[in-house]
Formats: sequence, C-alpha cells, structure tokens
Amino acid sequence: MTELMNRLAALAQITDGDGLTRLFLSPAHRRAAALVKSWMEDAGLAAHIDAIGNVVGFNGVPGPKLILGSHIDTVRDAGWYDGNYGVLAAIEAVRRAGDLSFGVEVIAFGDEEGVRFPKTLSGSRAVAGSFDPAAFDGRDADGIRMAEALKNFGGDPDGVAAVARDKAETLAYVELHIEQGPVLEAKNLPAAVVTAIAGASRYQVTVAGAAGHAGTVPMDLRRDALTAAAECFLAIEAAARAHPHTVATVGAVTVKPGAPNSIPGEVVFSIDLRAPEDATRRAAAADIEAAVTRIAGARGVTCVLTQTHEAPATACALWLQDQLAAAAEAHGIAPFHLSSGAGHDAMAIAALCPVGMVFIRCAGGISHTPEESITAEDADMGVRILVSFLQNFVPERNNV
Amino acid sequence: MTELMNRLAALAQITDGDGLTRLFLSPAHRRAAALVKSWMEDAGLAAHIDAIGNVVGFNGVPGPKLILGSHIDTVRDAGWYDGNYGVLAAIEAVRRAGDLSFGVEVIAFGDEEGVRFPKTLSGSRAVAGSFDPAAFDGRDADGIRMAEALKNFGGDPDGVAAVARDKAETLAYVELHIEQGPVLEAKNLPAAVVTAIAGASRYQVTVAGAAGHAGTVPMDLRRDALTAAAECFLAIEAAARAHPHTVATVGAVTVKPGAPNSIPGEVVFSIDLRAPEDATRRAAAADIEAAVTRIAGARGVTCVLTQTHEAPATACALWLQDQLAAAAEAHGIAPFHLSSGAGHDAMAIAALCPVGMVFIRCAGGISHTPEESITAEDADMGVRILVSFLQNFVPERNNV
Repeated sequence: MTELMNRLAALAQITDGDGLTRLFLSPAHRRAAALVKSWMEDAGLAAHIDAIGNVVGFNGVPGPKLILGSHIDTVRDAGWYDGNYGVLAAIEAVRRAGDLSFGVEVIAFGDEEGVRFPKTLSGSRAVAGSFDPAAFDGRDADGIRMAEALKNFGGDPDGVAAVARDKAETLAYVELHIEQGPVLEAKNLPAAVVTAIAGASRYQVTVAGAAGHAGTVPMDLRRDALTAAAECFLAIEAAARAHPHTVATVGAVTVKPGAPNSIPGEVVFSIDLRAPEDATRRAAAADIEAAVTRIAGARGVTCVLTQTHEAPATACALWLQDQLAAAAEAHGIAPFHLSSGAGHDAMAIAALCPVGMVFIRCAGGISHTPEESITAEDADMGVRILVSFLQNFVPERNNV
Repeated sequence: MTELMNRLAALAQITDGDGLTRLFLSPAHRRAAALVKSWMEDAGLAAHIDAIGNVVGFNGVPGPKLILGSHIDTVRDAGWYDGNYGVLAAIEAVRRAGDLSFGVEVIAFGDEEGVRFPKTLSGSRAVAGSFDPAAFDGRDADGIRMAEALKNFGGDPDGVAAVARDKAETLAYVELHIEQGPVLEAKNLPAAVVTAIAGASRYQVTVAGAAGHAGTVPMDLRRDALTAAAECFLAIEAAARAHPHTVATVGAVTVKPGAPNSIPGEVVFSIDLRAPEDATRRAAAADIEAAVTRIAGARGVTCVLTQTHEAPATACALWLQDQLAAAAEAHGIAPFHLSSGAGHDAMAIAALCPVGMVFIRCAGGISHTPEESITAEDADMGVRILVSFLQNFVPERNNV
C-alpha cells in the first residue's frame, strides 16, 4: 500500500461515531485537523489552523499564491475519499514537486458537506471573503450555535473576516476530488479535467386530480394524479436528455391517498435539475415547465410547480483546464473533460480567483457511503498530474 | 323528507364512534340490527336475527323464496347509504308491493365491508352455505376472536351452518345499492341495472434499478427505477383502456431512497385490475405483464410482478337483468347497464342462486366518506323499481 493510501486509511479512523462521521467543528474534525497539520509540516509547509477551522499549509515563497485544497469534513457514515483525498493528494504533490518559484498554499476546508449547520462552505467562503457572519447564528441539531462550536473547536469568530485572501495575491485554486459518479469508470480513464460545477434548480410539483374508488370509476371519467405525474416524470427525463450534459431527477414522490384500491388524487414530487451552463439549465427548465403545463391541461389535473432552490453554475477557468489537461496527457491520459454534478469548495473559491478541478475515478460512481472506493494507482495518478501541473504552472492573471 | 330518508338518517345515528362507524358484531351493529328488525316488523314481515347476526324478515308465503337485501355494517367514518340504503329500500318495497304470491325474505347482512376481521362476507356466505368456520378464529385489532364477538353479539357459532339456505328453495337474490361511482351522474340517470360484479386481480410490482447521486450520473448511465415505473403506470392505464369496461389503478407507490437528490433505485407499486368478465381481465393482465417485461428489458431494470389477490367476476343473471330493466323502464328510465367495480354481498349469494343488482345514482361517485350522498327522489326511484320488479316477478329457475 502506498503512503498516500495509508494516510487516507489513518485519517478515516478519526470519527465521532460508528463508521466515518466527521462533522464541521466536531472533536473528530479537531483531531483530523491536527493530524493533517502535522502531515503538512512533514511535507515542508508552514502550517496553522485558521480562525474558521481551515488547516493551511504554505511553502513560504513570497508573492501571489496558488491554492490547492479540498475538505476534511464528511457526511455521516461516509466514505474515506470524498474531500480527504484531495487534501492529502495536494500535500503529497507539493512535497514531490520540490522547490517552486511561486507561493503555494494547501488548505483543508472543514465545512463542505453542510451536514451540521444550516449554512455550508464556511471555510472556503471565509477564504474567498464571502462568508456571511449571519451563519454564526445557525444552530446544529443540539441547539449549539456555530459561533459557540467554533470557539470550542479553538477557532475565533472575530478573526474570520481576516481569513479572506486578497484577490491580487491569489493566482488560482485547484482541487482534486473523486468523481462521485460513474463516467470515468465507464470511459476507462483514471482521471479527467472538470469543465464546470453544475448549476442546480430544485422544484416541488403538486399534481391535483380526483381521488376515487379503484373499482367504480371508469377510465374515461378519471383524473388520476399519478398517471399525470408519470407523464411528467418521463417528460422531465426527456428534457434532460435533450440538453447537453444536463441531468434531471425525480427522487421523492408522495402519492395520496396511497391505497391500492384508491385512484390517486394528489401526487407531490421533487425535481432536481443540473447543468454545467446556466443557459442550458434554464432551457431545460422551460421545457419541463411547458411539458408539465401541457400534461396538466390534457389530463384535466392541476400541476403547481414551485422552485425551492437555485444555484448558478461555476465554470472552471479554461486556461487552468488547459494546463491540467496537459499535465494529465503528460502521464498518458487521453484528454477528457466532464462537468461536476455535485458541489465543491471550488464553487465558493470562484468568487476569489480562477478555479480548476481534476476528478479521479471511483468504483461504481459510489460516494457518501462506506463502499466509496478508489485504487492506489488512480490516487497516485492524481498526485502525479498535480505534480506536473505545479512544475509547469504558468499563471494567466487576465484570463479569469 | 321521505320516510325512507328519515329512516336512513336515524339508522346513521347508530355508531360506535365519531361519524358513522358500525363494524360487524359491534354494539352499534347490535342496536342497528334491532332497529332494522323493528322496521321489518312494521312492514308486516316476521323478523329475527339469525345465528351469524343477519337480520331476516319474511313475508310468510310458503314455497321457494326471493331474497332481497344488502348490509348494515359500515367502514370507519362511513357514509349513510352504502349498504343501509339497499336494506331499508327493500323493506319499503316489500311493504309497498302488497300481497305477493311467492315467498320474500329481506336480509340485512352484517359483514360486507370486512373492516373488523380478516375474513369478510360472513353473513352472506352463511346464507349461501359457503361460510368457512375457520373464519371464527380470525381476530380483530383487539385480539377478539370472531366466534367470541358473535357470542357477545347474541349470535351462535354452532348455529351458523343451519343458516344456509336450500338451493331448491331459493329463487333469486336482488340487491339495491348506491353506485359508488360517477357513471350514472355522468349519464344523467337515476338508476341502472348491473351486469356483473367485476373480478379483481391485485399485484405488487418491485422495480429494481440503480440508485445514484442526482448530480453525478449522466442520463445515459442511469437505471432509474422511477422512470421505468412511470412507463409501467402509463402502460397499465393503456391496457385498461384497451379492454371494455376494464379499470386498472396504481394506487400505492413507494420510492427508495426517496430523496430529492437521489436517483430512485427501487420502486414498489400496487396494481388493482378489475373487469366484469374474467377473460377480459386475464387479457388485460397479460397486456400489463408483457408491457412491464418489455419496459424492464428496455431500461435495464428488473421488474418482479407478484399477484396478491384474485377474485373471479360474478355475472348477474340475464333473466333478472331483463326483469329489473323492464321495471326501470316502467318508471321512464332509459335502459342502461353497467358493471360494479366494487364488491357486494351478491358475490357470495351467487353460490346459492341467480343474483341481480340495481344501482342508484350517488353524488360525485363518492362513497366510504361522510360526503356520500343520494337524493330522496333517486332513493324513492330505487324502491319503485323494486316494487314493479316484485309485482311482475317471474322466476326462471333453469336460467341461472
């Protein structure tokens, strides 16, 4: 087993529960931060834990900096690699890259999963200068305010504003992450460059028809909310397929009254729509809204579509994509780009500087469960790509 | 308000809970049976409550009998007319018909809804000679055996076998009932003759695909159990529409994991399929099974279809349909026949003798709720049809 995989295994032992559960500002987070800090120091970086709980390692070279990083908080009963891989791979890459002519910081963010408090991305938002102090008032399930938890962790709410980096002193941000999807496995590729983090829209749709006795209402007198919803499900799928790199999912469905012998009178369902470009997502959303309206009219039911969430897409800088792709090709990896359907710290950092990401293959596209898995070879390939990228990095400050 | 409507309102006050809840062998059932018995006696019938709890009134004419009836048990929080109307209308019709040349029994059955014990139709099965004593061991939600409840009611488990009628001494069974569906209202008809009580098949279908992250799995790599199920829902609807007088309903649906940001990995749903002819129902079932298999194959999911219930159709005797239609026409009602999608005591009595049914219109097709409603005019029309039927009844013993 490689040193990197050994460290990932060791880090995964730091948990507050059964399996791996390491929430923002928890005791496990504090212990993990200390371990990661020691590994940064082993790699020759000057390391500290900042006011919001980020672990920051610096190579000491003055002038504008390149930031590498990912997160060390996890979901409950998590896998070992989501976030943690990107942090430890960055430390290893900086160690292997040797002396560099520019400043490099490695940051282990602490609040990417958003499991504990209402607001998320606290660490990366603090670095980007977009942290909203109102988030301090958010409470966890035990009623503990984030500000209180941060103090208990050893952080400093009053010091968070000073964590913000200066745009003029920041060259770019690059994050390695496991794909959390099945595309690289299907393409038989160990790694690929990310084009964008998808924007997302979520809706709740309520279909109201007429409930009735499953035996006594002829088909032509029915206004079945479920068959109307079924047409919507297929139209939503078709709308996603009709737009490039777009995905749409109906994941939650409630049918009322919900008895085998009752015609459904009401169906409530969710739509999750994501695309790497906002215009594409808006076009798919318009297709979905038109289809839902058409289906409701044709079936004599009402469909009320309410947007519950919207997040714009985050584009990765083309010049970073190019340099990351060149680094991958240097290791024999065919050029392949894909977008990220999941969120990452890079979304927040994009407010500060150009961002780039590299995905490495994970088994079966499975993430957020203990079954999450990567190979030692792929993990090392990610490090090698990052080393080549660092050794050949040319900042293009005007190409944001 | 008519006397019949007044009696229906009075009977509806006899309940064991809020609203109208009168379960088999309950205290409310006992009090309702006593009241119905008194009304039978008022109409000139010799009345008793038999060993299984049926209230039986007899006009005293020796020889083979015509049986009229319906039930006086209800669902929880029931409407006033389901069952109760048929019993009180029959009593009123016998009173109005005057002297008849043949024996007539009116029976108020007590266990049509099957709410309290595992087995149902106990009263009508006892009369038909098909009651299975194993039903006595069934327990209600409080653990009370049916046999014990029957004794508490004043019945006699040991006497139930003797309740069975002799086929040679039974001419026919005719039941008036509210439609419990919207067809007569849509047709602007007060009443119609029933052709058959639909046979019913129920299935549970489990669709197994692959769960995944709603953002990270491209559309072409998905095996979404819900979109596969949606195609099944529409195919089931199409199969019902393709066969005459056939209805099919997906009423209960469970989606797992059931989160807005998760691709559904498993969907379990019910199918309720009914048709007035068994061959039709079997043909529709074959269409559904073929469609489900085709959809599963096309989408790379598995669909397991398990039959959970099957009841054959009960045909109403054509000669009874003819005489009932003639009675309706005598009151200016255009001939119209429809099948019953709901079950009735006539299903059990069909083992004993030819059966016939008349439906009267109910508001909005709504039943099994306090909103269940009929007009006094329609209620009286049902009685008038039954009176004309009785006054012109010609048994056709060989035309079963």
